Amino acid sequence: MAAYNHEPKRASNMTVNESRPFNAEPPISVLREHFVTPTDQFYIRNHAPVPVLNGSDHVVTVTGLVPLDLKLTMYQLEHDFPQATVMATLMCAGNRRTEMSKIKKVRGVPWGHAAISNAIWKGPRLQDVLLAAGVHRLESIWDTLHVEFEGVDICKDNRGYGSSIPMVKAMDPKGDTILALQMNGHQLPRDHGYPVRVIVPGYIGARSVKWLQTIRILSHESTNYFQVKDYKLFPPHVDWDVVDNWWDKAPPIQEMSVQAAICQPADGEAISPAGKYTVKGYALTGGGRRITRVDVSLDNGSSWETARLFSDLHNQKTGSHLTKWSWEFWELPVMSMPAPCTIICRAWDESCNTMPEDLKQIWNLRGVMNNSWVKINVRALSKV
Amino acid sequence: MAAYNHEPKRASNMTVNESRPFNAEPPISVLREHFVTPTDQFYIRNHAPVPVLNGSDHVVTVTGLVPLDLKLTMYQLEHDFPQATVMATLMCAGNRRTEMSKIKKVRGVPWGHAAISNAIWKGPRLQDVLLAAGVHRLESIWDTLHVEFEGVDICKDNRGYGSSIPMVKAMDPKGDTILALQMNGHQLPRDHGYPVRVIVPGYIGARSVKWLQTIRILSHESTNYFQVKDYKLFPPHVDWDVVDNWWDKAPPIQEMSVQAAICQPADGEAISPAGKYTVKGYALTGGGRRITRVDVSLDNGSSWETARLFSDLHNQKTGSHLTKWSWEFWELPVMSMPAPCTIICRAWDESCNTMPEDLKQIWNLRGVMNNSWVKINVRALSKV
Repeated sequence: MAAYNHEPKRASNMTVNESRPFNAEPPISVLREHFVTPTDQFYIRNHAPVPVLNGSDHVVTVTGLVPLDLKLTMYQLEHDFPQATVMATLMCAGNRRTEMSKIKKVRGVPWGHAAISNAIWKGPRLQDVLLAAGVHRLESIWDTLHVEFEGVDICKDNRGYGSSIPMVKAMDPKGDTILALQMNGHQLPRDHGYPVRVIVPGYIGARSVKWLQTIRILSHESTNYFQVKDYKLFPPHVDWDVVDNWWDKAPPIQEMSVQAAICQPADGEAISPAGKYTVKGYALTGGGRRITRVDVSLDNGSSWETARLFSDLHNQKTGSHLTKWSWEFWELPVMSMPAPCTIICRAWDESCNTMPEDLKQIWNLRGVMNNSWVKINVRALSKV
Repeated sequence: MAAYNHEPKRASNMTVNESRPFNAEPPISVLREHFVTPTDQFYIRNHAPVPVLNGSDHVVTVTGLVPLDLKLTMYQLEHDFPQATVMATLMCAGNRRTEMSKIKKVRGVPWGHAAISNAIWKGPRLQDVLLAAGVHRLESIWDTLHVEFEGVDICKDNRGYGSSIPMVKAMDPKGDTILALQMNGHQLPRDHGYPVRVIVPGYIGARSVKWLQTIRILSHESTNYFQVKDYKLFPPHVDWDVVDNWWDKAPPIQEMSVQAAICQPADGEAISPAGKYTVKGYALTGGGRRITRVDVSLDNGSSWETARLFSDLHNQKTGSHLTKWSWEFWELPVMSMPAPCTIICRAWDESCNTMPEDLKQIWNLRGVMNNSWVKINVRALSKV
């Protein structure tokens, strides 16, 4: 297809789960090596060909119920507003989807455990841009408004990929929603939204719209396909025969639930029985909440050990919010690692929520928000 | 004990779980009859004798790191600040503790499923009171500060019952933390903190300090017993032998996790087999998030049906925040109710978190935050 003649170059070590549109995740062992994911190892979730855009003539339109329509160049976004730097982990709602298909086939990009990455983003705050469009005059009705984002990438219904977030999230001074022009200190790469994308920290990646073209203030949620006919969480009993009755009943997924993965060892890896071994992984939760604990079991949940958190509760104690929107790294040193063995982990966040035990009990036909207990198997290394 | 000679009169239908100090919950069927719990049916959680106070001479002191110390009479709290009305459900962190003791004995007041109630509270916003004490001058360090509350009721270490919340929660314009002078349109009853208590919506009830005497701004969490040696959530492997190593490791419980209960039928109730029956209950979550779904299973989790929510997603759609901090009522009409039967329910909130399946896996020695799947048994009504 000619539409895919202008795709950017990608790192060769990525696992490609779908090639057109391009969807790929890094090796999970590489993911765990860097608290801030190297840009070329950041998972890529595209819904269409990557647009060919030029930052010097691209314009973002702010419209809808705003008192003042705006058309903003990239130069204006960079120079007319204070620039905020936000570390934020993005995760696809479909992270860990492949596991779900083992119960019963689900539809969607077959992600492993690495549809998640952490980066440092920089650009103007969305609230400052909206204030420039006069939204302070609407403050008494912010609770009823939604902010729709639409990209250049035409996907469904001849519209760009799009979605919306509540106005209160957009205007929350602690919400850190920005229009990112930079990723990890450099201009955004084309795969990640060049020249400008939204970053909605604490929400599923689907709301951080790339190749941003239009911001629209609405009195209702976006009617974009990806807000109303995708990224929804249904009960296990909803199948394709009845799903049409359900799209309206389920709210769009916005904040992320508690999530984790084991990055070391890899599933199926062979290790030395009874040797010293350090199990490592990541954990993440939504809404700017902190991960408070990660439990690991080597005996199928009969007993648990508590992993060391990367930040060791440092952030809660000092109140530092540097990593408020980022994942947590954890590790558990094991003195005598059994092999073969099933390793299980579960994380908890500061709202005392944890991950559900049984994948089957949260199965859903779109395979989203799989945050069941993480289970991997290791084999015993053969003796030479 | 003479200290208990001045306890208030209480409704005779309450289940008294501890008499001195007084701890009682209403019948769960009564609880589900009123979206706003009648004042005399509101669960009572006291840590000491009820203080004998006089609203006309009681004073709340605001001190600590504030630029300006304040001493505020009840008249000043009512007349010198705008009065906010907030509907908020309070729940004890020990709600559903008794179930946990079935796995292994836990310590604490033996609550059933009704250590939870909903009321309409009215009084000045905490943020307005703190602003009067000059905290705007500290805005750059709010992230590092804590607001301690201490009551008149002497409990441990010769100090009043107390705790703290983060300054950012106290100052959050959407946080709705108030100093309540009224409950359901009337002066606070003595059991609920007369003449003034804190209401911290979305947090466990333990932070809504009653008989408030002192508000103290600190650079660290409160060192009050009930902040540092109680109301903490430990992993299942922590027992009384090792707990002293754990108090500092676990953060204090603040926001509530997803919770639910079945109110009708009662556990052990006899019902007509194959008759029409409506299962009813409540659900609640923390942080101002919405309950998005309640699933009910009549076959031990093999299949689920989705209950009707009282507000039928009305609030999400209109953005109304009237019930932002209150519980959700749900019901499931069953055309042919099996009996005997185990009825299971689990709730989900808008961060896509749900309740853990297995009580054993979240067991903790203080028996807090039991939000495992709710399971009750019904018998078949004998044929006459």
